[in-house]
Amino acid sequence: MTGVKRDHGGGIDAAAARFGGARADWIDLSTGINPVPYPVADIPDGAWAALPDAAAQQSLIRAAKSFWQVPDGADILAAPGASSLIARIPALCPPGTVDIPGPTYNEHAAAFTAEGWQVSDQTPNARVVVHPNNPTGDWRDRETGGYDLHVIDESFCDVAPDRSLIDRATTPGTLILKSFGKFWGLAGLRLGFAIGDPALIAHLSQMLGPWPVAGPALSIGTRALTDPGWANATRQRLNVDAARLDTLMTGAGAQLAGGTPLFRLYTVDHAQGWQDRLARAQIWTRIFPYSDSLIRLGLPAPDQWPRLEAAL
Amino acid sequence: MTGVKRDHGGGIDAAAARFGGARADWIDLSTGINPVPYPVADIPDGAWAALPDAAAQQSLIRAAKSFWQVPDGADILAAPGASSLIARIPALCPPGTVDIPGPTYNEHAAAFTAEGWQVSDQTPNARVVVHPNNPTGDWRDRETGGYDLHVIDESFCDVAPDRSLIDRATTPGTLILKSFGKFWGLAGLRLGFAIGDPALIAHLSQMLGPWPVAGPALSIGTRALTDPGWANATRQRLNVDAARLDTLMTGAGAQLAGGTPLFRLYTVDHAQGWQDRLARAQIWTRIFPYSDSLIRLGLPAPDQWPRLEAAL
Repeated sequence: MTGVKRDHGGGIDAAAARFGGARADWIDLSTGINPVPYPVADIPDGAWAALPDAAAQQSLIRAAKSFWQVPDGADILAAPGASSLIARIPALCPPGTVDIPGPTYNEHAAAFTAEGWQVSDQTPNARVVVHPNNPTGDWRDRETGGYDLHVIDESFCDVAPDRSLIDRATTPGTLILKSFGKFWGLAGLRLGFAIGDPALIAHLSQMLGPWPVAGPALSIGTRALTDPGWANATRQRLNVDAARLDTLMTGAGAQLAGGTPLFRLYTVDHAQGWQDRLARAQIWTRIFPYSDSLIRLGLPAPDQWPRLEAAL
Repeated sequence: MTGVKRDHGGGIDAAAARFGGARADWIDLSTGINPVPYPVADIPDGAWAALPDAAAQQSLIRAAKSFWQVPDGADILAAPGASSLIARIPALCPPGTVDIPGPTYNEHAAAFTAEGWQVSDQTPNARVVVHPNNPTGDWRDRETGGYDLHVIDESFCDVAPDRSLIDRATTPGTLILKSFGKFWGLAGLRLGFAIGDPALIAHLSQMLGPWPVAGPALSIGTRALTDPGWANATRQRLNVDAARLDTLMTGAGAQLAGGTPLFRLYTVDHAQGWQDRLARAQIWTRIFPYSDSLIRLGLPAPDQWPRLEAAL
């Protein structure tokens, strides 16, 4: 995968402009965001007003280390979204050649290219894998090290924590990314983490500046990461809903091509036609510039199933 | 000002550990944060869950352009705090020599030094001024251009919008910074802006990555920047409260040395002694590593005045 062209999920505004309907009427299945987010509940007033203090930041880091079983010897940095880390990681080393097995999330290649890297699998000195991969759902367990920079993007891995490669966080040059935008359903919160090589983490921290994470995100993140009951119940619900979506889509003629419990990838006869048909029912899905036959759907929220069933 | 040593306001945790008292009992006058923040009110649920969409980002930018009277020809970028911009600005050009007239906010020098710049007033090719300056309150209206990079940090300038240098935002190489952490009292929100040279703004945007600002910050920021009534009333209240603080401090033997309506700088016989005396009453203030006689106080919240009066 090369070049800096970025296409993303989301974009309901553009879809509504083209297919009609008020924005609020649309069902957005174009992302892999859990539609039943971790409950935000009350934010302490001081979280908005005061500079995020050291104690609140340390509470979040402690909770994250425990939840993701971060090994001793690896450092961890909380950031305003995994995207802020993805954008800065290519500046950690002098530009070289990075291997980014595709198709995958396109911000990695865009960020490396913007910093002067070549994206190629020929004698790379850096590598990025998305684990599990988006949109295919492939696991990358057999990846090996030996790179100056080895990024393992686990933005979707909280659905299956036993598959995490967190034990590789102590390998020099390694960075493992975590996101609050997918499994936790809080993409608007802007909270992500880098875990790994202490020298790289220190450099990233300097690039983000002090107080990178908002007070409410510190509070919500700490609460979420110390709530294993919610995480366990969510894993079960996501699996049930993913199976329900597969039944619905295969019943309508699609074939399962991959995915994770947060999004499903299907092969269809004509992806653009499927997207347009669902869009006329104000349901937005994701197709890909590199394929005429792949369509990806996130999970509907509990009250959105009837409309999807009707549209199919 | 040279070196990377950073001292900041805040740090109530450390003060409480040394002088006693529960954290919640402390009055924090060590910052320049308005103690009566813009009311956060209700956040739309979707702001936490969905990826911040283009329409919400455009609303914020439109409100900011109008509020700060951004001239045509200048671009504007919303960021997760002015600190995130300060940390990345030195990477916009190859390292050279930057003039940062001091004493001033120390993150600028720290960020430039970390990127390999020399901080010196001898043949600089970049310049940073804080307008009005922190902690002295000096205005920098007579600054002239001619630098590859000219940063005008207006983090405290919303107290006196007529003094803004926003008309210089179209000068090549210029970046003007705005903050939501001071005048608006929402330091935990993490929202700041860079305004200026379109090429520099585009580079900063690429370094921050997509969706740099959280959904709730887009919502609150847009509301605040389209509420001139709150801003006007706040300016008046800050002026009244600053005068009240001056009366109190000069009555206790301090001399006014500078400041803005958001913080006041005083000359005292022994700054450390004053800080310790107020700390024993669980009131935290700011002193500076470069002066034995300067102490800076932010404004107390309306219900905090009696304790300050008693402690003095």
